[in-house]
Amino acid sequence: MRMVTTAAVQMRCSDRIEENIAHAEELVREAASRGAQIILLPELFERQYFCQERRYEYYRFAKPVEENDAVLRFREVAKELSVVLPISFFEKDGNLLFNSVAVLDADGSCLGIYRKTHIPDDHYYQEKFYFTPGNTGFRTFKTRYATIGVGICWDQWFPETARFLAVNGAELLYFPTAIGSEPILSVDSMAHWRRVMQGHAAANLMPVTAANRIGLEEVFPCEENGGQKSALEFYGSSFITNGTGELKASMDRTSEGVILAEFDLDELMENRLSWGLFRDRRPDMYHE
Amino acid sequence: MRMVTTAAVQMRCSDRIEENIAHAEELVREAASRGAQIILLPELFERQYFCQERRYEYYRFAKPVEENDAVLRFREVAKELSVVLPISFFEKDGNLLFNSVAVLDADGSCLGIYRKTHIPDDHYYQEKFYFTPGNTGFRTFKTRYATIGVGICWDQWFPETARFLAVNGAELLYFPTAIGSEPILSVDSMAHWRRVMQGHAAANLMPVTAANRIGLEEVFPCEENGGQKSALEFYGSSFITNGTGELKASMDRTSEGVILAEFDLDELMENRLSWGLFRDRRPDMYHE
Repeated sequence: MRMVTTAAVQMRCSDRIEENIAHAEELVREAASRGAQIILLPELFERQYFCQERRYEYYRFAKPVEENDAVLRFREVAKELSVVLPISFFEKDGNLLFNSVAVLDADGSCLGIYRKTHIPDDHYYQEKFYFTPGNTGFRTFKTRYATIGVGICWDQWFPETARFLAVNGAELLYFPTAIGSEPILSVDSMAHWRRVMQGHAAANLMPVTAANRIGLEEVFPCEENGGQKSALEFYGSSFITNGTGELKASMDRTSEGVILAEFDLDELMENRLSWGLFRDRRPDMYHE
Repeated sequence: MRMVTTAAVQMRCSDRIEENIAHAEELVREAASRGAQIILLPELFERQYFCQERRYEYYRFAKPVEENDAVLRFREVAKELSVVLPISFFEKDGNLLFNSVAVLDADGSCLGIYRKTHIPDDHYYQEKFYFTPGNTGFRTFKTRYATIGVGICWDQWFPETARFLAVNGAELLYFPTAIGSEPILSVDSMAHWRRVMQGHAAANLMPVTAANRIGLEEVFPCEENGGQKSALEFYGSSFITNGTGELKASMDRTSEGVILAEFDLDELMENRLSWGLFRDRRPDMYHE
């Protein structure tokens, strides 16, 4: 048996970085005190979801990983609590800006960076204005407690993300997220969003942990955003599935907090082998 | 609006071909009388699930598509009722045997054959003994009512199957199936099985229709099967999802019958475009 406890943090994000980092830390400490070893925070939790509007000055939010406030703070927290923390942040690398995750191991070291492969673009999720499509490829990280794969938000809608992480040795999948209302499409995508990732878990026989933010985030008209007025309501609903895609823990749309689930990585591996799916893949038939 | 009604037939299979074909026809007629235009029968419904045991003489069950009893009969039925019928059958092509589907259009013509890509192999699902892995690749078929993609049973566990059919223009996905108990693994895979395919629907914004058989099928020890004794209980639970993976119709584990659901193919296409998933795919990042 190789037991590991995974957790997701669900939180509201204010317009003050220090406040968000401190609040995230408070929830990470709660998760750790309850036994969590790998703890997922939501996407870009340092700020409100700035991609709701297009503003050139927001490019200045991006920093190299060595200078990002959340990464710097959580390297200390990871080491102190002996927990693994995938930290989502807005990354600057030379002339390129990425939507990235730094995977911090339980000794506080940074195991590496994954840059979001799939970039969405809709009226209030205007990420193509900010982020270059990731150039790292899908990456797995051998942490102290498990080999994990991380996708970032929109990546979670693509079976390719989960599959490539699984084929590359992932044992657990993580998706930091910022998703909520669709003011124009008028759809509530929550159940759809969950089913896609339950499908990834079921197809890869691998638990999925997804952490989303909550709260109403408003944008007011100004010259810098071209007079846009809008408001996104983030729907939380963070969850953890088991290796058949069944929900083992989940949150509502409005509460802050932490959810946890414990898995036996050896048992999951045995299930993957005995079910035979990876044995029977035929990559030669998958060329487009 | 481009409305289409899809249906799944759930049935028990006896050890008499003529009886199974007549019974399948009865249920197809019922579905058609209720408005179904594309009707899916279960996998290899002409016989009991012979792959439960390894017997050389069962190789003789395989026939070229032009000589298969079910295909011959259902070409007439398709034409008479103006319905599209994907017909699962055991195919012989020279020295090779395949687990295949012939897609019959509403005029009775055969649009082509798809050969099962992924072949399972477990104690009582011994398909690698019978079937060469399919050499057709994933295929879509432009039928009178919709462009459809068909995977066969084990294919349904692979996100690659659904994705390639969707990328190649499918509007609806079909999975004829023969799945039931796992005498050795002692798992009930039903919910897992459904979640994988609900995930395909959700990830590809495309309805999935799955038809399974029901009933206990027993194997008795004899020289030809090496003294094997076993029994598989097929669990039915056939279903139809919408384009977000939500179940729109489903059956229980023990009843025979027909389920139907109606979809607007134009609306589904608009949803696929406005959601942006296919726009944002990055096939250059998917090389293994």
